[in-house]
Amino acid sequence: MSVATTPAAGAHPETGHITMDTWVCPLPLRDYPAIVMGHGGGGQLSAELVQHLFRPAFAPNATGALGDAAVLSLPGTRIACTTDTFVVQPLEFPGGTIGSLAVHGTVNDLAMVGARPIAITAGFVLEEGLPMAQLARIVGDMARAAHDAGVRIVCGDTKVVERGHGDGVYINTTGIGALAENLHIGPERARPGDVVLLSGHIGDHGMAIMSRREGLEFGSPIASDSAALHTLVADLLAAVPDVHVLRDPTRGGVAASLNEIAGDAGVGIAIDEQAVPVRATVRAACEVLGLDPLFVANEGKLLAIVPPECAERALEAMRAHALGTQAAIIGHVVADHPGMLVARTGLGARRVITMPIGEQLPRIC
Amino acid sequence: MSVATTPAAGAHPETGHITMDTWVCPLPLRDYPAIVMGHGGGGQLSAELVQHLFRPAFAPNATGALGDAAVLSLPGTRIACTTDTFVVQPLEFPGGTIGSLAVHGTVNDLAMVGARPIAITAGFVLEEGLPMAQLARIVGDMARAAHDAGVRIVCGDTKVVERGHGDGVYINTTGIGALAENLHIGPERARPGDVVLLSGHIGDHGMAIMSRREGLEFGSPIASDSAALHTLVADLLAAVPDVHVLRDPTRGGVAASLNEIAGDAGVGIAIDEQAVPVRATVRAACEVLGLDPLFVANEGKLLAIVPPECAERALEAMRAHALGTQAAIIGHVVADHPGMLVARTGLGARRVITMPIGEQLPRIC
Repeated sequence: MSVATTPAAGAHPETGHITMDTWVCPLPLRDYPAIVMGHGGGGQLSAELVQHLFRPAFAPNATGALGDAAVLSLPGTRIACTTDTFVVQPLEFPGGTIGSLAVHGTVNDLAMVGARPIAITAGFVLEEGLPMAQLARIVGDMARAAHDAGVRIVCGDTKVVERGHGDGVYINTTGIGALAENLHIGPERARPGDVVLLSGHIGDHGMAIMSRREGLEFGSPIASDSAALHTLVADLLAAVPDVHVLRDPTRGGVAASLNEIAGDAGVGIAIDEQAVPVRATVRAACEVLGLDPLFVANEGKLLAIVPPECAERALEAMRAHALGTQAAIIGHVVADHPGMLVARTGLGARRVITMPIGEQLPRIC
Repeated sequence: MSVATTPAAGAHPETGHITMDTWVCPLPLRDYPAIVMGHGGGGQLSAELVQHLFRPAFAPNATGALGDAAVLSLPGTRIACTTDTFVVQPLEFPGGTIGSLAVHGTVNDLAMVGARPIAITAGFVLEEGLPMAQLARIVGDMARAAHDAGVRIVCGDTKVVERGHGDGVYINTTGIGALAENLHIGPERARPGDVVLLSGHIGDHGMAIMSRREGLEFGSPIASDSAALHTLVADLLAAVPDVHVLRDPTRGGVAASLNEIAGDAGVGIAIDEQAVPVRATVRAACEVLGLDPLFVANEGKLLAIVPPECAERALEAMRAHALGTQAAIIGHVVADHPGMLVARTGLGARRVITMPIGEQLPRIC
């Protein structure tokens, strides 16, 4: 920080009065190759970071001041909101970056209650020393993901922590979505007889992160499935307005999501392991590493629970969407074993799929 | 993670069929004195942390499932939203914790556009090893601050990073507020002739953090001024509906806030240094440390810019509120030196108060 003392820069040397014509900013434009503490200080460096990096990416056409709060007009008075902080390592991986992941994750949480995403806020915790070029790539990827999903990044915040107190960048995204008056999608609506659908192959995100993190190479490269699911949900709801439950199986995978739904609804869920789509490469990679694909995180898949009479229509609607071509019916909601998820294995036996204790792959999102 | 293999826990030893009557959860209830990676995994440990710590604090009366997205009904279709991540060190300080600060900071950002705070989301990044007791204190303080401010914490997210990749806890709070149709408060409304008011003593928050961080002791202890300002704003707006600008001078202090307003509005701002209220202890501490109180962060003060004919009424309204008893008129908006803040010093000279480059006290909020 630099504060001019009396006589001020530009002050007349004798009178001390300030002559604005001769006053010049004593600070040259700065060009830092990496994040420094001052970028989080709320002063000129912060302002430059916003002006030269965040604003061109997130709001290239916006005019006027950037305040601390954004003002939004909504189409109605019923909204959904959700928050998620992303701490994934590595920051860049096959199929995405922490930036696109942060947009997709939050758009998807809104989509899972049937809300149409409207606005996203972005909170950055940057670690001192983060290369500016890497931040620019991440922010660019985030902006593209938001643009492609048709959602605006409306306000943001940047903090900087000392080297060794972060991990490059953590991003919080909080989403606001518009919700139709008559829509009620939630785990408590699962009831015996309902059909469980899955929108496609599972395990891609987790194994993509794992392969990159551990430097593993498999037969063919595995890319994250990170994607925004709200248009798939819109198509599904157009075909089947009475969808009971939607859930994106992220941390803890399909196993954690279905266990949560079973617990929340007080019902049992029975799935057929053989019906769950898993790519051969992902299955092989999981076998090598001793992982169960049912527990591996996804970032572009959804589980849908629908009344039995709507199941085929739901399946068709999902398969007609680019993100649901491999959709499948994987099981049913049952009255037996409330609160539990049971899978029929390839050998015809049944096994209880418990809620995972933690995550087999930490820092996955 | 632990997955039962065939035959499942509780399965009949011969038939392999699961007998629910004899099935017991193979995992004892866990009692961890500190955060472990699994608390961020989205599995049982995450669920227990939410169930036993966050939920009792933030939503003691809520029933039903906790989904990833909260559904809200708003009084109208015009809202304000704001996001802020808090990385303050130390986590606990005289006058508050990172938890109450996270609530106050976000409530205040909403209040500064005249919005009535309705909902807050909470995103936690926890560092492995954080004592559970300390997390509980912080969460409790956060819940109290939200309760006192009359704002609900509606959804949350928890991530855990490895020891050495965080700093105990970082908290993102994103706020949603209801905004009256006819209200337009913003820096671009500052115009020459307007009067600049300050709601009270400056520098308390920054110096409280500084004294705790550096182990300094001053004549009398300095406590943070961290407080929710929305009721002060409501009283002010009731007395003076045509408030032009509101700003809470946090990072970078009064100097950064007034510089930003001058820049955004293309006007000059002239203040009288002698009129700016600073406690004697804070002034002395600043002198010892070579800091200028105008650049020190506040978390419970606001700047208001109002038309000249409303200035006295605004001052009275602020002084009648518990958080504004020391309010003062500190300057004016001028047509001269657009984009610049100029202070008249105690000696009668004038000095340019530049925008700080960074923050003299990093990690202040």
